[in-house]
Amino acid sequence: MKLTRKSFFKGAALGIISLPFVIKTCGAQNTAQNSGPNIISGKKYKWKMVTTWPPNFPVLGEGCNLFAKWVKEMSGGRMEIKVYGGGELVPALESFNAVSSGAAECGHGAAYYWAGLAPSAQFFASVPFGMNAQQMNAWIISGGGQELWEELYDKFNLLPMPAGNSGVQMGGWFNKEINSINDLKGLKMRMPGLGGKVLAKAGGNPILIAGGELYTSLERGVIDATEWIGPYHDYIMGFHDIAKYYYSPGWHEAGTTLELFFNKEKFNALPNDLQEIMRTAAMRLNMWMLSEFEAKNTFYLKKILSESKAEIREFPQEVLTQLKQYTDEVLADVTETDAFAKKVYDSYDKFRKDAVEWSKLTEKVFYNKIQI
Amino acid sequence: MKLTRKSFFKGAALGIISLPFVIKTCGAQNTAQNSGPNIISGKKYKWKMVTTWPPNFPVLGEGCNLFAKWVKEMSGGRMEIKVYGGGELVPALESFNAVSSGAAECGHGAAYYWAGLAPSAQFFASVPFGMNAQQMNAWIISGGGQELWEELYDKFNLLPMPAGNSGVQMGGWFNKEINSINDLKGLKMRMPGLGGKVLAKAGGNPILIAGGELYTSLERGVIDATEWIGPYHDYIMGFHDIAKYYYSPGWHEAGTTLELFFNKEKFNALPNDLQEIMRTAAMRLNMWMLSEFEAKNTFYLKKILSESKAEIREFPQEVLTQLKQYTDEVLADVTETDAFAKKVYDSYDKFRKDAVEWSKLTEKVFYNKIQI
Repeated sequence: MKLTRKSFFKGAALGIISLPFVIKTCGAQNTAQNSGPNIISGKKYKWKMVTTWPPNFPVLGEGCNLFAKWVKEMSGGRMEIKVYGGGELVPALESFNAVSSGAAECGHGAAYYWAGLAPSAQFFASVPFGMNAQQMNAWIISGGGQELWEELYDKFNLLPMPAGNSGVQMGGWFNKEINSINDLKGLKMRMPGLGGKVLAKAGGNPILIAGGELYTSLERGVIDATEWIGPYHDYIMGFHDIAKYYYSPGWHEAGTTLELFFNKEKFNALPNDLQEIMRTAAMRLNMWMLSEFEAKNTFYLKKILSESKAEIREFPQEVLTQLKQYTDEVLADVTETDAFAKKVYDSYDKFRKDAVEWSKLTEKVFYNKIQI
Repeated sequence: MKLTRKSFFKGAALGIISLPFVIKTCGAQNTAQNSGPNIISGKKYKWKMVTTWPPNFPVLGEGCNLFAKWVKEMSGGRMEIKVYGGGELVPALESFNAVSSGAAECGHGAAYYWAGLAPSAQFFASVPFGMNAQQMNAWIISGGGQELWEELYDKFNLLPMPAGNSGVQMGGWFNKEINSINDLKGLKMRMPGLGGKVLAKAGGNPILIAGGELYTSLERGVIDATEWIGPYHDYIMGFHDIAKYYYSPGWHEAGTTLELFFNKEKFNALPNDLQEIMRTAAMRLNMWMLSEFEAKNTFYLKKILSESKAEIREFPQEVLTQLKQYTDEVLADVTETDAFAKKVYDSYDKFRKDAVEWSKLTEKVFYNKIQI
């Protein structure tokens, strides 16, 4: 799902194919009204939220707008948050710095965007062959992840909160079939982040292309393949009209956690009731986004299957097993060079391994033997 | 997970084996303090929450206490909710009626407890061979489930909200091995609700026994097997000391939704900010409970495996397939005799079937091929 910096400057261009989908959501942010009882006195706050998403972007931008609406209503209008899409106030990938410095009070994004500033940050978003949504939430909320995340962001004067999850993403759109690991050799694929590094180890050619240029690049053969998110967002991009194969699963993003991050000084200066309102609204957003992804992807998968000639493919186990080995090498590179990254990954991987054993008796059996 | 009415009268007896676990949590409800800023004027509310759980019951009762704490803090102390365990104010299974009549303003439980009042209610909690947590949340929050749930509860002057999920439960503790469907014939098993009806169709003998009497009944051979929840709660009950086999998976409860229900008149009479605070806190509780179940069950599974001689077993596919067929018969009985149950189940099952297709490309592949 990772977008490149360039893509954010072109927010509006994202909806190339189905712009109405984006337009339809425009203005949602302005519909938040002060429906509070007006019985509340006390200081009023006007905050800015910078985000890494195009304005009103489906699910992600919409969710930020909802967060602002919930907070305004819960606070009886005392806290108004204006949500900015990437590039509207600061470039999308400057959000972290902008909130850190206090230029904006809060932001929404995904922690892997800040890997350049802190390598361990990406483990709070997504790890290739890592945990899915349910496991990530359990690790963060109830397994010690939140404490480590706060320790990391504290160095940047920030306070993080989980605030959304994409669920298991799709593997991407391909114009070449992948039958063995050798088919990845020389493959030109839009694939940022750790996933791109893994692809490179397999001999592939990970390319960074802005979201707004992806459709044309894939259509003209500048790239052979691209990952994006899942059926809902992919459908809006129109990839099903120009790609031969839709590959499953998203081994590189099995449950990407989205985040809210707050300027710590500004957050701590809030009265306790508003602090708790923020925390609670963040968790509501966390739940809402995952449910929205699940429902919308379910619906749009059917739509893609009925409207497109693109064929569904599943990466062969042999390919995935090899990619997992390359992933281990990539992760070792990260943890060997950054002590805090090792500390975070140790916690992450210990929780993951135990959660796998639990899932073998429950969720895994559910999908294989119950949901028949 | 269903408890019987009798068990609630014996709340304290639930912790037979490991009472310290229960004691440890006692008083949590009293630690909620008004940490609000005291800058807020306006009417103060003192509400009662009746629950179907023993006081301070791990995860479930603790979560209700947290809900009250969050609401108190977010409202700056204007809304105080006192949480009652089952039997403390009204018997556990009278909670629904108590809130409906306004004797209490809100309650926490699981909708299958009210199947006797409205057969369709149980579809908002758990359906054997039905949806798991992620799918249930998507259906309720983003797939039309909430609207149907509100339509149903409106008849009882209630407003429901999803407020917790157990995740996939375990299949239960057995002193007889289940190798074929014939092994269920004559099996005396504590198994309430729809699961019990399915067991009866298989020739089994579903028995209702209070939670507080389960350990002794299983130890003395009064029953051959019992379902409960998952490793965390099962460990507290001590079943691993007296049962030979711990069966996976919980085909009868694959993602049981817990609920908050509000007296509708009292809820609607609240100022908008407090209404939104309730909605948001409910969703935080929804997320918290699932994460807490996942993390605690992961931890306690290891504990059971290392401390007990009980063997893990998985129901054979043949047994599950046959139980699924009996489930279809049981569900047909429900939907054929209650029009609203049919309406709800049609929505549920349509969403489920589509979600299954989506999961085949994502979550199912994740558990089989990614998490290796």
